[in-house]
Amino acid sequence: MIKAAFLMVGLCFGAVPVAAQGIKIEQKISGLDTPWAMAILPDETVLVTEIDGRLLRFADGASHVVSGTPKVAENGQGGLLDITAARDFAISRTLFFTYAKPMQGGSGTALAAAELSADAQSLENLRDLFVMAQGSRAGRHFGSRVVEGSDGTLFVTIGDRGDDVKAQDRSTHNGSVIRVNRDGSVPGDNPFVGQDGILPEIWSFGHRNPQGAGLDFQGNMWVSEHGARGGDEVNRIQKGANFGWPVISYGRHYSGAKIGEGTAKPGMEQPAFYWDPSIAPSGLLVYSGTMFPEWDGDIFVGALKFNYIARLDGDPLVEAEQIMTDETDRVRDIVEAPDGAIWFISVGNGAIYRVAAK
Amino acid sequence: MIKAAFLMVGLCFGAVPVAAQGIKIEQKISGLDTPWAMAILPDETVLVTEIDGRLLRFADGASHVVSGTPKVAENGQGGLLDITAARDFAISRTLFFTYAKPMQGGSGTALAAAELSADAQSLENLRDLFVMAQGSRAGRHFGSRVVEGSDGTLFVTIGDRGDDVKAQDRSTHNGSVIRVNRDGSVPGDNPFVGQDGILPEIWSFGHRNPQGAGLDFQGNMWVSEHGARGGDEVNRIQKGANFGWPVISYGRHYSGAKIGEGTAKPGMEQPAFYWDPSIAPSGLLVYSGTMFPEWDGDIFVGALKFNYIARLDGDPLVEAEQIMTDETDRVRDIVEAPDGAIWFISVGNGAIYRVAAK
Repeated sequence: MIKAAFLMVGLCFGAVPVAAQGIKIEQKISGLDTPWAMAILPDETVLVTEIDGRLLRFADGASHVVSGTPKVAENGQGGLLDITAARDFAISRTLFFTYAKPMQGGSGTALAAAELSADAQSLENLRDLFVMAQGSRAGRHFGSRVVEGSDGTLFVTIGDRGDDVKAQDRSTHNGSVIRVNRDGSVPGDNPFVGQDGILPEIWSFGHRNPQGAGLDFQGNMWVSEHGARGGDEVNRIQKGANFGWPVISYGRHYSGAKIGEGTAKPGMEQPAFYWDPSIAPSGLLVYSGTMFPEWDGDIFVGALKFNYIARLDGDPLVEAEQIMTDETDRVRDIVEAPDGAIWFISVGNGAIYRVAAK
Repeated sequence: MIKAAFLMVGLCFGAVPVAAQGIKIEQKISGLDTPWAMAILPDETVLVTEIDGRLLRFADGASHVVSGTPKVAENGQGGLLDITAARDFAISRTLFFTYAKPMQGGSGTALAAAELSADAQSLENLRDLFVMAQGSRAGRHFGSRVVEGSDGTLFVTIGDRGDDVKAQDRSTHNGSVIRVNRDGSVPGDNPFVGQDGILPEIWSFGHRNPQGAGLDFQGNMWVSEHGARGGDEVNRIQKGANFGWPVISYGRHYSGAKIGEGTAKPGMEQPAFYWDPSIAPSGLLVYSGTMFPEWDGDIFVGALKFNYIARLDGDPLVEAEQIMTDETDRVRDIVEAPDGAIWFISVGNGAIYRVAAK
């Protein structure tokens, strides 16, 4: 399954610097259907979600389907979505998933946890930790990613389900980042606990469709989100903050119409970075490995549209590099392996690649 | 020294709601020269800084000058500035001060600590915890306020000293909020520790002249700052964030010229609230007392220009009320007393008032 691929960089936009010379990109897994996310376990086992609900396990040159996954609503962008291993996986064997859960009114983004059985054949003790309050029949903007915060709480990114005004309506979970404890309870220090008419799981709001998320070494959470045309964003998530959708955006509606009130408003957060033209970002990693010390703290974001990984660096952030191969087709997820290599899912050709130092 | 004053509300701007009926405002202290800040101790002793360097103590109907204050550079807006009592004052008797310290190149904003002697006649063990890296001969934009964070670290707001580009230059302390430990050392989790060319005390930057600061019940720090014309701001401080001065602002230069690049930019924070026309804000309190439960969490900001206290409420914040008396002349500081009453300094007539429930 290992196959060398050519490295191509800087071909999309002339102004972007060429990638570092010292990297190689290898295809590690192929033959996937519609992979959405991956987790690399401490023993380098790779787990991959397929949007149709299957969980695949790759280890020791073999692969199999892990049973016991949640029943998903496969509807447009919905299905089995993110996976991440708990920080204490070696002891707990706990995995976290996000998925589109069938529910009244259609489906809603949900967070589940389960333990991987000792033989790695099945999930055990599957339980929901969080389910969106309202279902929708819309097939888009589910989000989602799950990130384990530095304090062990769980953050989940949720899209607006195409119902943009709900991103400002905190009586719904649409268009928000939510935070729950590992047992599904609501942390007492969530920003809106006890406030009438606001769902207590909400940590930040005014998001459109956040499909990438990661923690930096200081414990800050960063999110990539699909904006409207010309308004894809990277945001540094702040407790209680309003990220402005659909009141403000650097994008325009696909019709060309202006969005909301413009690009900024007091009390609403500015993006840390935005892309115009849009790249359709999905999958975000803040790098913290030792394999590429020069990338420490850099933010990597996958592009579904232009088939590359953007490396963002600096303050303010700039797109310092574009990483891709001649085969890369729609980058869906990016993760860091225990050895510091960067793995990514190329969904268009159903493959997974490893970026490593030469 | 107690004198009733008439309550006037809503006279400056027609659209602002009238104050709650159930409050009274009494003059408590008069005859001050140029008071800058006050602290109310657990026993209701009132300490007041005068910009010329004196510290006054009011208790049991008498007043005296407390000796042992720092030697200040009295230059324009500089002098003895803020005072706050440590949260553990009853045990430690520690007070924190900010002041303009004479130094090479002119003067710089500094943070000092000292203990109030048992007889309350003098300060003991006066020591600097922080001094700006660069002095300046400019007489403006010193800031400053000191706030004890919920974790016991100390935040100090510092103005740009009129040298606006330095607010973006993190190799200087100009235009920043800094954070130090109570012994003056730098906390290891400050956002820029270990980054070349950035002073490690910096917590946030891009500020113009922040002269009000307070903590909310969640430990968030809020700051009021003097902007250029039409750009006075209230900001919720975020670790590592850039508040944009002089690149972005809702104000204009007093000449009428546009400032920087406009009102917003990715990677730079929007204000939580701004005033146009400017009010010259100084003194900020996030209310947490029991005397006015309906004001819990509201933000009070003093206006040097329009002689009132703005009460900000809601999400997004709106100016819900204006509080003043017929004597109020330039509100410099606002503090909450142990009983939940709100005290404020009216610098123009050298007096201190108490706002209490009827």
